[in-house]
Amino acid sequence: MWCGDASLVPSTARVADHFSPVLPARCDTAITTWGGFHHASTSICCIYTGFSKALYLEVEFILLSQQGTRDYNPKQMAIREKVFDTIIRCFKRHGAETIDTPVFELKETLTGKYGEDSKLIYDLKDQGGELLSLRYDLTVPFARYLAMNKITNIKRYHIAKVYRRDNPAMTRGRYREFYQCDFDIAGQYDPMIPDAECLKIVHEILSELDLGDFRIKVNDRRILDGMFEVCGVPDDKFRTICSTVDKLDKMSWEDVKNEMVNEKGLASEVADQIGEYVSMQGGKDMAEKLLQDPKLSQSKQACAGLADMKLLFSYLELFNVTDKVVFDLSLARGLDYYTGVICEAVLTQTTSAPATQERNGPAGEEGVSVGSVAGGGRYDGLVGMFDLKGRKVPCIGVSIGIERVFSIMEQKAEAQAEKIRTTETQVLVASAQKNLLEERLKLTAELWDAGIKAEVLYKKNPKLLSQLQHCEETGIPLVAILGEQEIKDGVVKLRTVATREEVDVSRAELVEEVKKRCQQL
Amino acid sequence: MWCGDASLVPSTARVADHFSPVLPARCDTAITTWGGFHHASTSICCIYTGFSKALYLEVEFILLSQQGTRDYNPKQMAIREKVFDTIIRCFKRHGAETIDTPVFELKETLTGKYGEDSKLIYDLKDQGGELLSLRYDLTVPFARYLAMNKITNIKRYHIAKVYRRDNPAMTRGRYREFYQCDFDIAGQYDPMIPDAECLKIVHEILSELDLGDFRIKVNDRRILDGMFEVCGVPDDKFRTICSTVDKLDKMSWEDVKNEMVNEKGLASEVADQIGEYVSMQGGKDMAEKLLQDPKLSQSKQACAGLADMKLLFSYLELFNVTDKVVFDLSLARGLDYYTGVICEAVLTQTTSAPATQERNGPAGEEGVSVGSVAGGGRYDGLVGMFDLKGRKVPCIGVSIGIERVFSIMEQKAEAQAEKIRTTETQVLVASAQKNLLEERLKLTAELWDAGIKAEVLYKKNPKLLSQLQHCEETGIPLVAILGEQEIKDGVVKLRTVATREEVDVSRAELVEEVKKRCQQL
Repeated sequence: MWCGDASLVPSTARVADHFSPVLPARCDTAITTWGGFHHASTSICCIYTGFSKALYLEVEFILLSQQGTRDYNPKQMAIREKVFDTIIRCFKRHGAETIDTPVFELKETLTGKYGEDSKLIYDLKDQGGELLSLRYDLTVPFARYLAMNKITNIKRYHIAKVYRRDNPAMTRGRYREFYQCDFDIAGQYDPMIPDAECLKIVHEILSELDLGDFRIKVNDRRILDGMFEVCGVPDDKFRTICSTVDKLDKMSWEDVKNEMVNEKGLASEVADQIGEYVSMQGGKDMAEKLLQDPKLSQSKQACAGLADMKLLFSYLELFNVTDKVVFDLSLARGLDYYTGVICEAVLTQTTSAPATQERNGPAGEEGVSVGSVAGGGRYDGLVGMFDLKGRKVPCIGVSIGIERVFSIMEQKAEAQAEKIRTTETQVLVASAQKNLLEERLKLTAELWDAGIKAEVLYKKNPKLLSQLQHCEETGIPLVAILGEQEIKDGVVKLRTVATREEVDVSRAELVEEVKKRCQQL
Repeated sequence: MWCGDASLVPSTARVADHFSPVLPARCDTAITTWGGFHHASTSICCIYTGFSKALYLEVEFILLSQQGTRDYNPKQMAIREKVFDTIIRCFKRHGAETIDTPVFELKETLTGKYGEDSKLIYDLKDQGGELLSLRYDLTVPFARYLAMNKITNIKRYHIAKVYRRDNPAMTRGRYREFYQCDFDIAGQYDPMIPDAECLKIVHEILSELDLGDFRIKVNDRRILDGMFEVCGVPDDKFRTICSTVDKLDKMSWEDVKNEMVNEKGLASEVADQIGEYVSMQGGKDMAEKLLQDPKLSQSKQACAGLADMKLLFSYLELFNVTDKVVFDLSLARGLDYYTGVICEAVLTQTTSAPATQERNGPAGEEGVSVGSVAGGGRYDGLVGMFDLKGRKVPCIGVSIGIERVFSIMEQKAEAQAEKIRTTETQVLVASAQKNLLEERLKLTAELWDAGIKAEVLYKKNPKLLSQLQHCEETGIPLVAILGEQEIKDGVVKLRTVATREEVDVSRAELVEEVKKRCQQL
């Protein structure tokens, strides 16, 4: 029951209005997705009983999630940092540069690039000046950047947040603010070499992140289009049939066929012919076989795609990654702008829980399977849309489904009850006796100046026990204990928190000793 | 003269309208602030001659800047990364965690926190759902985060972009999107220990960044208020007189006095008394002296502030940073929410140019001197504004004026004609002969798998010269050259780009050899 100062809660009524219709959905989301926030999900149930003063903050917290965003606490940040570090190291190993673009673009830059998803673009309020929108992905800003700066060659990565005005109440844990993590190679090069490198990068990152076994499916838009052509799909239905094919990882063939025939008006025999092709999976051999296929070989673009697929696999063999790569004729990808090779990585042992916490696929793209953790493809026409003369800059890129990876890592950490450190402090400077604050501060500064990560409690006379507890809680491995005697002797007692073992170390050797021990840990 | 497809430039007319009134200002800005973009500033002048097709993209580029944002190219990103790395290492050395908050907050979270600057808040368009605004700084979201999660103790840093709807045409190079880089300690602790650590951090960061000599001015809001009190400033004029005092680093005392007396209605004798105090600078000794000051010692809060200042300096002595810290009674800081110690770091050998490129002080706060590169203070009341019971969480924080630092670093790099590498590639895998693409790819993959940063040109048969040129241009120090003979002998020719020296290295030892040489570089 609310009994506080009403002026403090201007939106209580609005909050209540807001919640009642969506509460069942929110409860569900809260319980399945807010791993770390048990007190929050519990309190949602209490909303039914009305607002109590103490609950207001929880309600505000829910509102935050209602708006489709979230805070990252230090634990989540520690996981995020580790994942970014692995990915960025890989991108740098491959010689990539990085760029950054503003979080908002001119509205007209984004207009007409995302088809019907344009309704999900966040606009800024017209407060005078240009009309602006929050970026929807990193690919369109990249293409705008290349055209604007007349760049024809670049290998770049870009990790940043993008924004989509999805309805979070309806989409179970989809965030309106989420990270994309893109690697792209722009430039006119000999065929399939950059394409192979992109797949190699996906292979390296997924292996290093250790998310479990995975497959990287590849296909080519030209092969798909050629297949539609020879099966008798009318030209103007290529894209819509393509997006139906794309659902094969979530729906049975019967349902997909049903959609093709009954919703999209394809002849049943045509659908059946497509059905034969899209059940095929293989490797280089399959590309060779399909090049001999009496029907498919009649399509010029299918042949071009298949020849490139053969070439791609020969490079992938050299890169030693064919164990995970599958040529899969059912892979279609949602985005319109792909013009050649497309790819998508899926985890083969998907745990069910993480699927609720991130978007419906890598980088929030539509129509990719729930186990998907990376995706991409070749888009040779997009940059030209920003160039007045339509000069094309061929591009291929992959996007790591980083939000998905975060949530898998978070789940993993929770499942293993793994203690995640949120600081990197190596040593706490402590004392067992009173009136040694000055000595503690002096020693701490010495350690900082020597590059040691050190902490000291902000108390004049902390108890030794509370100092040791701080180490236990935050995972600090070492304690440098000062006492009158130690100060007289020019030593500190260096204690290893895990073993409780203590040895006297001379002040002069403390820095080296701390470094040595931290290396061993 | 425009003679292209008009449909491609829907906004030509609007662009022209937009520019004519602001062009002189823009030209100025372009020349002084767009260091790296000479072709852009040149082309602005051409706008007067009308739009040519080729100019359109430049105009678009100007528009980007018109909206107050910018792209960061790889060179700028490399500098940015280096600066962030130095700063984050320091924060971690001091045991800080990090958090992240969404780029937009509920509009009501920001309302009433920034005084008249609230007009600079970017609102999102009402597209249904909550009313949202882009964050204006990182401090209010931090306070909201603490209150919402009932956190009473944390030492955290947060580096992220914030948004202000300044008029970029009027404010010479002020960006509407810029980074803030905040370190804060929240919690109820013994006095002045966290405060001293914050100053130590500023000292460490500015020393490490090597921006030239600097001073860290400190003062205390309680001392300022006590001074106003004993000088006879009416209570309701404390804040406004405070902001006039804050202008002393940009205006002469005469002008400041003039503003106090003529604009703000202070008695001339009162102003003169203030004038005596604010000309004082010193250290611990000055705090001691002022504690004996017959007038100032009559103010309870001044005495509390001065006693703490004495204590602060005793800790700063232990931290060995008193060489740079000055107790300066003229330091006032613009923000209302400070309640205790305030500080500001200034470069003492300010070059004039960078001042145009960043905001008017650290972290975009108002009313700080142009040479300012860091600032902060104690704000014990802000978190309580987000807590229903008004529970206070005392906080002290500093903000590094990171945009300022970027532009100084960029200028420095340009002045020294320093070649900044934008990639970290250690070795290029090359060949002198034709038909060795497969061998190059195989070797490159071996290097990647061993953790070596390697590149290979995406060409079937690149010339050796163009491969070597790529190394020169991008700063790759080593080339691993493959030829028929080398392949037969199981070696590669390892070439040092700088010295042109070449030696045969066995394939088995290549990885170790590359690592060794890169360590030596």
